[in-house]
Amino acid sequence: MSQYDYTTLTGKFESYLSSHQPYGSPDTLYEPIRYINELGGKRIRPVLLLMAYNLWHDDITPALPAALAVEYFHNFSLMHDDIMDEAPTRRGKQTVHTYFGRNNAILSGDAMLIRCFDLLLEAGKQKGAAVDLCSLMCKAALEICEGQQMDMDFESLASPTESEYLEMIRKKTACLLGTSLQMGAILAGADHQDAKALYDFGEKIGLGFQVQDDYLDVFGDANLTGKQKGGDILRGKKNFIYVHTCNTLSPQEQKEFVQSYINAASEQDADPVLELYVKQNVGSYIEKVQAAYVEKGLADLGDLQMEGTMPLKNLAISLMSRHY
Amino acid sequence: MSQYDYTTLTGKFESYLSSHQPYGSPDTLYEPIRYINELGGKRIRPVLLLMAYNLWHDDITPALPAALAVEYFHNFSLMHDDIMDEAPTRRGKQTVHTYFGRNNAILSGDAMLIRCFDLLLEAGKQKGAAVDLCSLMCKAALEICEGQQMDMDFESLASPTESEYLEMIRKKTACLLGTSLQMGAILAGADHQDAKALYDFGEKIGLGFQVQDDYLDVFGDANLTGKQKGGDILRGKKNFIYVHTCNTLSPQEQKEFVQSYINAASEQDADPVLELYVKQNVGSYIEKVQAAYVEKGLADLGDLQMEGTMPLKNLAISLMSRHY
Repeated sequence: MSQYDYTTLTGKFESYLSSHQPYGSPDTLYEPIRYINELGGKRIRPVLLLMAYNLWHDDITPALPAALAVEYFHNFSLMHDDIMDEAPTRRGKQTVHTYFGRNNAILSGDAMLIRCFDLLLEAGKQKGAAVDLCSLMCKAALEICEGQQMDMDFESLASPTESEYLEMIRKKTACLLGTSLQMGAILAGADHQDAKALYDFGEKIGLGFQVQDDYLDVFGDANLTGKQKGGDILRGKKNFIYVHTCNTLSPQEQKEFVQSYINAASEQDADPVLELYVKQNVGSYIEKVQAAYVEKGLADLGDLQMEGTMPLKNLAISLMSRHY
Repeated sequence: MSQYDYTTLTGKFESYLSSHQPYGSPDTLYEPIRYINELGGKRIRPVLLLMAYNLWHDDITPALPAALAVEYFHNFSLMHDDIMDEAPTRRGKQTVHTYFGRNNAILSGDAMLIRCFDLLLEAGKQKGAAVDLCSLMCKAALEICEGQQMDMDFESLASPTESEYLEMIRKKTACLLGTSLQMGAILAGADHQDAKALYDFGEKIGLGFQVQDDYLDVFGDANLTGKQKGGDILRGKKNFIYVHTCNTLSPQEQKEFVQSYINAASEQDADPVLELYVKQNVGSYIEKVQAAYVEKGLADLGDLQMEGTMPLKNLAISLMSRHY
């Protein structure tokens, strides 16, 4: 068996994606889809799906339509989330609703979600796995909507608890990483127990991944992340760093902190928030949290008792230590 | 064989719908879904699906999840279309985005679309038809998005041609009526030829149905339709009556008519438009168009060579002569 690494699989996926861009009539529906597909990104979900499939098969070609399906789902959710969050840019470019208008972003997003199921049917038909793939997608997709709704509901709370926040990102982010791996395994003909072990691994890694995302938003290099530094602070968005910090403060300190967080409008306003984060030593807390997720994830991977899991292990570790 | 009529099937569907309202966490995601489900409506799509199934089976119970799926799809599309059209009311009540906010309407709509596929998987699994049902839904769903996009693109045209307009409503409305019937047949175990004949019947009836909708918008009794009389005129929305009238005028007359249509802001402004419609005798043109669709639809139904199609025939005729 030959196991492909992240770079090789990304390359294979990118060529498949560009040769399968959607065209149709009216083009006004399909152009925003091509636009978001071309924005790039890390392609983590499709690569995870391909890595899982690759544990059982050398030739990953039959898994490419399913890999495209999970990327379509992810991009659909970005398109709609960006409207809800009123985000002007993504990956250094205008978001779809900013560039094409809100209505087009709603409708092209809908079309991407539909196309996701269509691709899963195509992928699954050859392998008799269409129903299983679509069922897994439905389950994950509803959880992702629930996660996004929880995220929006948190806006009107002073602070959710750390475990409420983690449950939100489990649904909104981690679930799809786990499901991508699980789908790859099912498509490869794996038994449900092995597929579930991969799901569990992906869910842990997904939690650590999102915590790192939140960390990079606050402390990352804007030139590398392509995002505004401290963007979450300026938007008053409650991320993991905020939630953790809230939970370490006395009630009176918390009250003041929440006020200054909500009122932060300029980079100057963000400075005291950043200072408090440094004082509370959130960096080392984040590292501890991530190390625990990686450890648990690797234990799930161990349950597989399979060779060739090195690319997955490497990916898990690199996602936690990434700078963008 | 016993064939149920429209009223009986609506009753069966309504009980199923109310005992299958979705609950989950967070409730803020599911409440808008229950709200739109309870707004009522004619339930044409689920009833068509049940009528088709009923051609082969007395007991329509196994088709209820699929019937719910098409109603979910329809309500998802209403939820999103109402945002795009900025419609304040539907069926005499506030639209979802007006009542719950735009973001909730986007996200709950997404969840309804996902749940639609989940219900089709549930319905199809028992009958080994899950892949076929989901494939038909994907095809229809994409066409519906294309139709909605065409509708939006028409806003920036003086007037589409009558055949462009009909192609738009074929995609946006007629396709789902046809697909509902086709799904009912597939689920019943019908062969693909019979299922296709039912699709064709539904598509024709759907075209006539939408033409009647456009007619009622202009000439209907607002107390019966629950819509603002001449709402399309006041919103500058290009419906079938408008498109037909444009195409009967000389270039100069058309130019003046388009101007007065676009500028109509009050009921007084709408009066000259209405007068022109009456002068051009659009009522009798609509009748002619509908009669042709019904005739073609009934011919498709004849291709089935099955007994028990009376409820479908009755429905076709009543949809054309309806007042709301």
